Amino acid sequence: MSQKVLVIGAVAAGTKAAAKMKRENPRAEIVVVTKDEYISYAGCGLPYYIGGIIEEKKELVVKTPEDFKLLTGIDIFTKQEAIRIDKALKVVDVRNLVTGEVKQYTYDDLVIATGASPFVPPIEGRELKGVYPVRTVNDAQAIRELVDQGAVKKAVVIGGGFIGLEVAENLHHKGIEVSIVELVPHILPPFDEEIALYAQNYMTDQGVHIYTSEKVLSLAGQDGQVTKVITDQREIEADLVIMSVGVRPNNQLAKELGLELGPTGAIKVNEYMETSEANIYAVGDCAENINLITGQPAWYPMGSTANKMGRVAGINMANGEKDSLKGVLGTTIVKLFKLNAGKTGLSERDALKAGFEVETALVPANDRAHYYPGYREIITKLIVDKASHRILGAQVVGEGVVDKPIDIIATAITFGAKVQDLEKLDLAYAPPFSMAMASTILAANVLVNKLTGKVKGIGPIEMRNRVHELQVIDVRDEGSFMIGTIPGAVNIPSGELYMRAGELDKNKETVLVCKIGKNAYLAYLKLKELGFKQVRILEGGMNAYPFERE
Amino acid sequence: MSQKVLVIGAVAAGTKAAAKMKRENPRAEIVVVTKDEYISYAGCGLPYYIGGIIEEKKELVVKTPEDFKLLTGIDIFTKQEAIRIDKALKVVDVRNLVTGEVKQYTYDDLVIATGASPFVPPIEGRELKGVYPVRTVNDAQAIRELVDQGAVKKAVVIGGGFIGLEVAENLHHKGIEVSIVELVPHILPPFDEEIALYAQNYMTDQGVHIYTSEKVLSLAGQDGQVTKVITDQREIEADLVIMSVGVRPNNQLAKELGLELGPTGAIKVNEYMETSEANIYAVGDCAENINLITGQPAWYPMGSTANKMGRVAGINMANGEKDSLKGVLGTTIVKLFKLNAGKTGLSERDALKAGFEVETALVPANDRAHYYPGYREIITKLIVDKASHRILGAQVVGEGVVDKPIDIIATAITFGAKVQDLEKLDLAYAPPFSMAMASTILAANVLVNKLTGKVKGIGPIEMRNRVHELQVIDVRDEGSFMIGTIPGAVNIPSGELYMRAGELDKNKETVLVCKIGKNAYLAYLKLKELGFKQVRILEGGMNAYPFERE
Ligand SMILES: Cc1cc2nc3c(=O)[nH]c(=O)nc-3n(C[C@H](O)[C@H](O)[C@H](O)COP(=O)(O)OP(=O)(O)OC[C@H]3O[C@@H](n4cnc5c(N)ncnc54)[C@H](O)[C@@H]3O)c2cc1C
Ligand SMILES: Cc1cc2nc3c(=O)[nH]c(=O)nc-3n(C[C@H](O)[C@H](O)[C@H](O)COP(=O)(O)OP(=O)(O)OC[C@H]3O[C@@H](n4cnc5c(N)ncnc54)[C@H](O)[C@@H]3O)c2cc1C
Ligand SMILES: CC(C)(COP(=O)(O)OP(=O)(O)OC[C@H]1O[C@@H](n2cnc3c(N)ncnc32)[C@H](O)[C@@H]1OP(=O)(O)O)[C@@H](O)C(=O)NCCC(=O)NCCS
Ligand SMILES: CC(C)(COP(=O)(O)OP(=O)(O)OC[C@H]1O[C@@H](n2cnc3c(N)ncnc32)[C@H](O)[C@@H]1OP(=O)(O)O)[C@@H](O)C(=O)NCCC(=O)NCCS
Ligand SMILES: [Ca+2]
Ligand SMILES: [Ca+2]
Repeated sequence: MSQKVLVIGAVAAGTKAAAKMKRENPRAEIVVVTKDEYISYAGCGLPYYIGGIIEEKKELVVKTPEDFKLLTGIDIFTKQEAIRIDKALKVVDVRNLVTGEVKQYTYDDLVIATGASPFVPPIEGRELKGVYPVRTVNDAQAIRELVDQGAVKKAVVIGGGFIGLEVAENLHHKGIEVSIVELVPHILPPFDEEIALYAQNYMTDQGVHIYTSEKVLSLAGQDGQVTKVITDQREIEADLVIMSVGVRPNNQLAKELGLELGPTGAIKVNEYMETSEANIYAVGDCAENINLITGQPAWYPMGSTANKMGRVAGINMANGEKDSLKGVLGTTIVKLFKLNAGKTGLSERDALKAGFEVETALVPANDRAHYYPGYREIITKLIVDKASHRILGAQVVGEGVVDKPIDIIATAITFGAKVQDLEKLDLAYAPPFSMAMASTILAANVLVNKLTGKVKGIGPIEMRNRVHELQVIDVRDEGSFMIGTIPGAVNIPSGELYMRAGELDKNKETVLVCKIGKNAYLAYLKLKELGFKQVRILEGGMNAYPFERE
Repeated sequence: MSQKVLVIGAVAAGTKAAAKMKRENPRAEIVVVTKDEYISYAGCGLPYYIGGIIEEKKELVVKTPEDFKLLTGIDIFTKQEAIRIDKALKVVDVRNLVTGEVKQYTYDDLVIATGASPFVPPIEGRELKGVYPVRTVNDAQAIRELVDQGAVKKAVVIGGGFIGLEVAENLHHKGIEVSIVELVPHILPPFDEEIALYAQNYMTDQGVHIYTSEKVLSLAGQDGQVTKVITDQREIEADLVIMSVGVRPNNQLAKELGLELGPTGAIKVNEYMETSEANIYAVGDCAENINLITGQPAWYPMGSTANKMGRVAGINMANGEKDSLKGVLGTTIVKLFKLNAGKTGLSERDALKAGFEVETALVPANDRAHYYPGYREIITKLIVDKASHRILGAQVVGEGVVDKPIDIIATAITFGAKVQDLEKLDLAYAPPFSMAMASTILAANVLVNKLTGKVKGIGPIEMRNRVHELQVIDVRDEGSFMIGTIPGAVNIPSGELYMRAGELDKNKETVLVCKIGKNAYLAYLKLKELGFKQVRILEGGMNAYPFERE
C-alpha cells in the first residue's frame, strides 16, 4: 500500500514539502489542501505587485493547481480549510469553504504548513473599508485596484517592518503621499538603531513621512470608509491604511491537537521538522526555528527558510536518509528605493540581551573600486563576542551592494568564524566587483583594531547622547566642516593636527571626527603619539552619523 | 634607536606593508624604493584606463609619493632599483635610474615586494613597435595614446587569461577589431572547459575573434612597426599586439641572495610572510602562497592577496602580536562585456590532478526572483570530494551576479564546508536580491542528489564526445527543440513521456535534455519509475551546453 501524505497549506513550505516528497517516493499518494484560492504564490512579491513593478498576477502566482498537478502529479484542493486533526485515527476534517461540506482525509504522514497571518491589533475602526493587511494575493489585488483607480491620495502604513516599508515605497512610486507610523523608536525594528535611522533618514529624504515612538489609537472613517489614522500624537488623513505590525504563526490546529508549541508560539519542531507527535511534521512560517548562534528557539517567518524546511520534511517523510535543518540566523534584507539594508545574526541589542559582551565596528566603505564607475558606499556594522572574537552578527546598509557582504558573513557565522577569519577571506576581486580589500575585510580590520586596543571608537548613539561632555575635533577640511558637523565640534584639519595640538585640552575626553572614520583613525594615532590619553574616533564618521548636524 | 625598515617595491604589497608598519610603530623609520616612476597604482584598473572607462590617470594612481608621505610620513623614492641585498651587513644597494648612482640603504627589517613581470616569450618580432605587455601605468598610457590617436584598427591579444580578455573587451569598445590567440584549448585557462567555452562563445558573439589551441610563432613588421601575428595556423593583421601570456615573480634579488624559492619560482614565505632569512619578509606577487585546499604551494599573484600579505608583514615587523595569512583559494573573477565569470578553489581538472575523486554539478539558475525585473541567469559549477563531500571549488558564469555566489562558496570552503552545509545556509532573500532557494543552495541540492544517487548526470563535454553512442531525448516543447538541440536528439516533450516511453530503447544509454536540467530531472524520475536503468540528464541543459547544436 502506498504511503499517504496530507499537507495543510500550499504556499511555499507546503508545496515544497509535497513536491519533494513526491520526487523521493513517486508512489506516495499526496494531497494538499489550502483554504486560500491561490497556491504557490510569491508573498515576497506582493509589494511589487501593488506598485506595478510586477505587472501581472500570473507572475506572482508561481503555479496554479493545474500546473502543479501536471508537474508533480499531486492534487491541491483550494478553498478547503482543515478544521480538526485526529491523531489517533490519523484523520483530518476539512471544510469546503464554498459548499460548507466537511470531508475527512486520512494520512500516514501529515505536514502542517499553515503559515502565518498578519496580526491586526484590536483598535477601533480596523473593520473600515480601505484597511488592509498585505499577506495574500487577494489583499494585494484589492490594494492595487484601489491604487490603479486613483482612489488613493494618502496612505498610512502602520508598522515600519520590512513589509510595511516595501509597501510604502511602492505606494510612493504611485504618487501617493505615504506616512509610516511605528511604535518603537525606529523603523526596521530588528536592526540596531544607528543603522535603522540611516535607512529612516533615507526614506524621509525620498518624501515618506515617518512617525516613530508613536502609537496608533484608532482609525476613523466616513460612510464605512477609512479617512484618518489617530495616533497618540496626531491625526493623519488616509484613504488607505496598511496594517503591517507583524505576523503570528497559524498555530490553532496544532494547539487544539495538543502539539507542543515553542516559547514563540510557533509549532516546536526538531531539526528533522518533526513535531512532538509522530508522523506529524510542521514546516514554514507556522513552525519555530532555532537561532544557530544562541541555540535558542526563535521565529523567523521567511520564505527562504520555509522552502528549506519544506524540502527537509519532504525528504524525511520518505524512507531512508534523514535530512536536517539545524537552525537559521535571522538573515533578512530589504530594498528601499535605491537603498539596501541587510542583517544576519544577532543585532547588538539582541546580543546584549542574550548575555554576550560585545565589541562592534561601524565602517563605511565602497562596494567596489573607487575608480570604477558606479561604485556606491555601504556601511557595515559588525558585532562580535568580546571574549572569543566569534562573529555574532552584521548589518549592512547603503546604496551599494549589501546582499553580498551579508551572505559572506552569514556563511562565516554558520561555521563559527572569528572576526580574524573574515580578515583573511580570499574573496573575488576585480574593480567592477569589489575593492582589493573588500568592505567586509576592511570592517574586520577595524574591529580587530578595536579588540587589540589599537583604536578606540565611539558610536553615533553615544556620541549624540554625550556630545556636550566631549571635546569634538572635526579633522576634515574646512569646506566639509562648514557643510555640516557634530554640534559643538571644532575644526582642525588632519594636516594641521601636529601643529595645533596645543589648542586641545589633553585631559578632556576627545573625539575625532572625519568622513568615514579612516582619517580620524590616522589622526588618533598622531594624538596618541603626542601623549593624548582619552581619545576616540567617531565610528563611521559623518557618513554614518544619523543625527542632527550643525 | 628606532627600527629601520626598507621596502622594495611600491605598488600594492609594498605600500601596504609600509603603511601598516608605520601605524603599528609610528617611530619606525621606513623607506620604500621602487624602480618605477609610479607608486600605489591600480594594476587591476589598467585595462579600463585603456578603454577610457577610467578617464584620468590620476584615478588609477591611488597615491603619489607626496600624498603617501603626507598621509603616512613614509618616504618613497621612485626610479630607484634595488640591485643587491647583503644580508650579513643588512644593507641594500640601490641604483638611481636617472643618475646611475648607487646608494646603500641599511635596514633592521627588509620587505621584498618586487611583484611580478609579464612573461614575454622569446619570439621573433617581440621588440617591434606596437607590441606591449599590460602591467604598468606606462604600458597602459602608451596603449591608450595609440588608441586615442586612432592609430589602431586591428589588435591581437596573445594570451586569453583574464588580463588579455579585459584588454580585448576594452579595445573592442574603442571600435578596434580584436583577435585573441590562446595556446590551450580555451580562454580563461584556470577554468574548466565547459565554463570557459561558455565565456568564449559569449566573447565571440560580441565580435571578438578567438583562436584557441593555436601557437604564436612570430610577429612580423614593417619599418619597425608590428603588422602581423603569425601563428601555427594563420596570419593575423595587427597594428597593436598585447602580450598577456602570463606573469612571472620578480625573484631575481631573492635568488641572488640565496633566499629559498618555492616550486612555483616565487619566494617561499611562511604564514607570517617570513622568508627563509631572518628579518626579511616577502609579500605580494613576488611571494608564494599556500593553497588552503591542497595545503600545497601555489602562486596566485592577485592584488587582493598582495594587500593582505602586506598588512600581515606590516603587523609582524612591529613588536608584539603576530598576524598570519594561512593561505588562499585562488579566487578570481572577471567581467567580460556583460558577462561575469568567477572561480574559487580547485577546478575539476586541478582537483583530479591533486588526486581527489570528485563529483560535480552544473546548474543554471536565476540570480534573483524570476518575477523581479532585471533578473539574469548564472550557471554554477560545484566540485566536491566524493568521499568526504567537502567542497573543493566552484565556478560561476553568466550575465547575472556571480561575485556573490563565488564569495559565499569561498567563505564556505575556507571553513571546510561540505556541500550539505551549503544547502542550509541562511542567505539573504528578498525578490530584488535572490531566489527563495538561492542559486548556490539549488546547485548544492542538485549535487547532493547526484551524490545520493537520486539522479545521474552527464556533463556537456562527455555529451559532446559520446553523442553518437547515446539515445538523446529532448523533453522541451517542439518550438525550443526546433531552434536548436543536441545533434541527433529526438523530441519527446515532458508531457508526452509516459505515453511515448514505448518509442524508446530501454536498454540503450539514454540522456534527457531540457533547458537547464530541471525538467530533464523530473523526466528522469518518470523514466526510472518506468524501469529505465541507464538514464542520465544533460547537466545544465541546453543553456549550459557550449558546443554545436543542430
Ligand atoms: C508582503 C510580504 C513580503 C515578504 N517578503 C519576504 C522576503 O523578502 N523574504 C522572505 O524570505 N520572506 C518574505 N516574506 C515571507 C514569506 O512570504 C513567507 O515566509 C512564506 O510565504 C511562508 O510560506 P508558508 O508556506 O510557510 O506559509 P504561508 O505563505 O503563510 O502559507 C500558508 C497557507 O496555508 C493556508 N492555511 C492556513 N491555515 C489553514 C487551514 N487550517 N487549512 C487549510 N489551509 C490553511 C493559508 O491560507 C496559506 O495559503 C514576505 C511575506 C509577505 C506577506
Ligand atoms: C592588467 C592587470 C589586471 C589585474 N587585475 C587584477 C584583478 O582584477 N584582481 C586582482 O586581485 N589582481 C589583479 N591584477 C594583479 C595585481 O595588479 C597585482 O597582484 C598587484 O599589483 C601586485 O602588487 P605587488 O605590490 O605585489 O607587485 P607589483 O604590482 O608588481 O609591484 C611591484 C613593484 O616593485 C617594483 N620593483 C620590482 N623589482 C624592483 C627592484 N629590484 N627595485 C625596486 N623596485 C622594484 C616594480 O617596478 C613595481 O613597481 C591585475 C594586474 C594587471 C597587470
Ligand atoms: C516552486 C515550489 C512549488 C516548489 O516546487 P519544486 O518542484 O520543489 O520546485 P523547484 O523549482 O524549487 O525545484 C524542482 C527540483 O528541480 C531541481 N532542479 C532545479 N534546477 C535544476 C537543474 N538545473 N538541474 C537539475 N535539477 C534542478 C531542484 O533541485 C529540485 O529538486 P530536489 O528538491 O529534488 O533537489 C514551491 O517552492 C513554491 O510554490 N514556491 C513559490 C512560493 C514561495 O516560495 N513563496 C515564498 C517566497 S516569495
Ligand atoms: C592604499 C595603500 C597605499 C595602502 O595604504 P593604507 O594606508 O593601508 O590604506 P587603506 O586605505 O587601505 O587603510 C588605511 C587604514 O585605515 C583603516 N580604515 C579604513 N577605513 C576606516 C574606517 N572607516 N574607520 C576606521 N578605520 C578605517 C584601515 O583599517 C587601515 O588601517 P589598518 O590597516 O591599521 O587596520 C596600498 O594598498 C595601495 O597603494 N593600494 C593601491 C594599489 C593596489 O592595491 N593595487 C592592487 C589592486 S589593483
Ligand atoms: Ca527519509
Ligand atoms: Ca608583531
